[in-house]
Amino acid sequence: MPYPFTVTHESTDTRARCGVLRTHHGEIETPVFMPVGTQGTVKGVLPRDLAALGYRLILGNTYHLHLRPGEELVRAAGGLHRFAGWGGAILTDSGGYQVFSLSHLAKLDADGVTFRSHVDGAKLRFTPEIVVGIQEALGSDIMMPLDECPDVHAETAAMERSVRRTLAWEERALAARTRPELLLYGINQGGLDRTIRRWHAEALAALRFDGISIGGLSVGEKNDEMYEMVGFLDGVLPREAPRYLMGVGTPIDLVLCVARGVDQFDCVLPTRTARFGTLFTSDGPVNIKNARFREDFGPVEPGCPCPACTTMSRAYLRHLFVAGEVLSAVLNTLHNLAFYAQLMEKIRAAIREDRYAAFAKAYLDRYRRGTKGGE
Amino acid sequence: MPYPFTVTHESTDTRARCGVLRTHHGEIETPVFMPVGTQGTVKGVLPRDLAALGYRLILGNTYHLHLRPGEELVRAAGGLHRFAGWGGAILTDSGGYQVFSLSHLAKLDADGVTFRSHVDGAKLRFTPEIVVGIQEALGSDIMMPLDECPDVHAETAAMERSVRRTLAWEERALAARTRPELLLYGINQGGLDRTIRRWHAEALAALRFDGISIGGLSVGEKNDEMYEMVGFLDGVLPREAPRYLMGVGTPIDLVLCVARGVDQFDCVLPTRTARFGTLFTSDGPVNIKNARFREDFGPVEPGCPCPACTTMSRAYLRHLFVAGEVLSAVLNTLHNLAFYAQLMEKIRAAIREDRYAAFAKAYLDRYRRGTKGGE
Repeated sequence: MPYPFTVTHESTDTRARCGVLRTHHGEIETPVFMPVGTQGTVKGVLPRDLAALGYRLILGNTYHLHLRPGEELVRAAGGLHRFAGWGGAILTDSGGYQVFSLSHLAKLDADGVTFRSHVDGAKLRFTPEIVVGIQEALGSDIMMPLDECPDVHAETAAMERSVRRTLAWEERALAARTRPELLLYGINQGGLDRTIRRWHAEALAALRFDGISIGGLSVGEKNDEMYEMVGFLDGVLPREAPRYLMGVGTPIDLVLCVARGVDQFDCVLPTRTARFGTLFTSDGPVNIKNARFREDFGPVEPGCPCPACTTMSRAYLRHLFVAGEVLSAVLNTLHNLAFYAQLMEKIRAAIREDRYAAFAKAYLDRYRRGTKGGE
Repeated sequence: MPYPFTVTHESTDTRARCGVLRTHHGEIETPVFMPVGTQGTVKGVLPRDLAALGYRLILGNTYHLHLRPGEELVRAAGGLHRFAGWGGAILTDSGGYQVFSLSHLAKLDADGVTFRSHVDGAKLRFTPEIVVGIQEALGSDIMMPLDECPDVHAETAAMERSVRRTLAWEERALAARTRPELLLYGINQGGLDRTIRRWHAEALAALRFDGISIGGLSVGEKNDEMYEMVGFLDGVLPREAPRYLMGVGTPIDLVLCVARGVDQFDCVLPTRTARFGTLFTSDGPVNIKNARFREDFGPVEPGCPCPACTTMSRAYLRHLFVAGEVLSAVLNTLHNLAFYAQLMEKIRAAIREDRYAAFAKAYLDRYRRGTKGGE
């Protein structure tokens, strides 16, 4: 069965590529960044405003939606798209990461994981079958299998045991699937161990997954270690499969990992830091609460199409932040998502026009220079 | 000097009227409801979304903007409209009400009032001249003079002393004005005392104000006492002046006070209660956190043009509220402001078509019936 993905242009000077990913809710141009909509909403942003920024694919969190409002309510509402008023596509994670980072008393066994809700302490259980069932009830266009995310520095034997369990769960997830129109990716694990990463990648390629997620990175290792592992996997993963680097990252990460053949990204960075006043610019991030913006009547980023940059100044955004206004979070989030959307648009154009290496160098030079001079 | 206001249609069956108010930032159709934008933003709402709902005139708070970011910063930004990215008109209050309700240690004298900022404790002073100066720096299209808002149940002698002081301050505000393109209203005070209300109204009519505000109501008296006083003032105030009933009110208040000749209203009710989950409907207000909405997949108000009603269900809005999502406040506010905008549109249409009495009766019957059966 072919992957639901077509590579439309291969970069001549890097391993970057443009592609089209076919989902039940439309075709997605890649490389693509997916905003995180944890509880069925990208925090503070109307679905129509996300679409206006060019987004066609967002992420929802299986763990959070299972807890609240529950997948049966969402199913009764006609699925997550209809429930949230979102006309684009949705990818959901497996919930495994949240079980281990957010819930209480998570207890792993061969069959699954038992844990207590961080909301009300209720005792809950995830198995590969349950997690696929939840995502099918949500109607997720791109589902993830339950996986374990071991410590990136775990010893080889422990890492191998963990990845073998994940692979067994992934086979069960494939078997549990009942809605073939919803894509299911395999998640590659193995920390920084190339041997384990390779055999797991080869095992996943042999199974009938619709794409490959790269998990277990951006969890505490050095940046260069992450880039190296992504580059290594680029040579191991099937070229024709869409590759999704989970939970990554900064603008620098995106530029560098696209050059290593990654097609999809998600990260809370642009939305979460927005609520704390961080705004992304081509000259690096700035924090809007800084006193130097008090009487700065220019836009955050000239040429940015977001409502803040087109009609408001840094001074106004600083005022909203200092005054504790909710519009501060709304505008900052819109700006950062506009910035990320613009970055991905520039990335796709540079790949198509066979100038990705030069684009990446110029972009990173400016961004890093600004970052050094900034906060 | 004529008032900057033209009555375009007088209701044949009530005292309601339609009019056009001419401001430095455009003409405003009346009767009009003005959303409250305390700190230079209607909380959680983008200016473009306010405009899309039909709003052309919003309110800013002089006291809050004086404290943060300060009128000199706003002046340097090119005025409050440009600072906040708002293309419509702005009315500002005098700050007097906030001085007495929010600030610390407010101390009144014949010349003005000294108080401490509720933000940082700084010692500040308002006089009639200072308050006009602040509003001119903001570039407010409709300014208010510093006034005292006495206890609605104050004894006659105290009420009269207070209103005489307010009148003296109002004459000083007129004299202090330097930007004639910015309108300045007089504020009528006097609590529930008809004698004082009348002589103050007559004194204001003799001065060169651009409109008359009715202050000191909706501050603890009974609803019927307020309606009676508004009806009394309707017979006392110049028919050709725009009349602004400050801080009012509920949909019922608006329908009843329009019938008593009021042209302008402002109130935090639709925006503040939205943040606590209250949504206005033609069948009365509902609170979205109510368990009966858990699986209610219909819109809050069928036919409402807001993004919540056109693309989302009560169940989704309840989920957002329960999950503590910031989008809950954003969507609820947009809905309530859409509801108020629709109400004012219906009111203006009913006046123009000489069916205001019948409209008001039908509207109130349905709204009150719903309210009784609701929360």
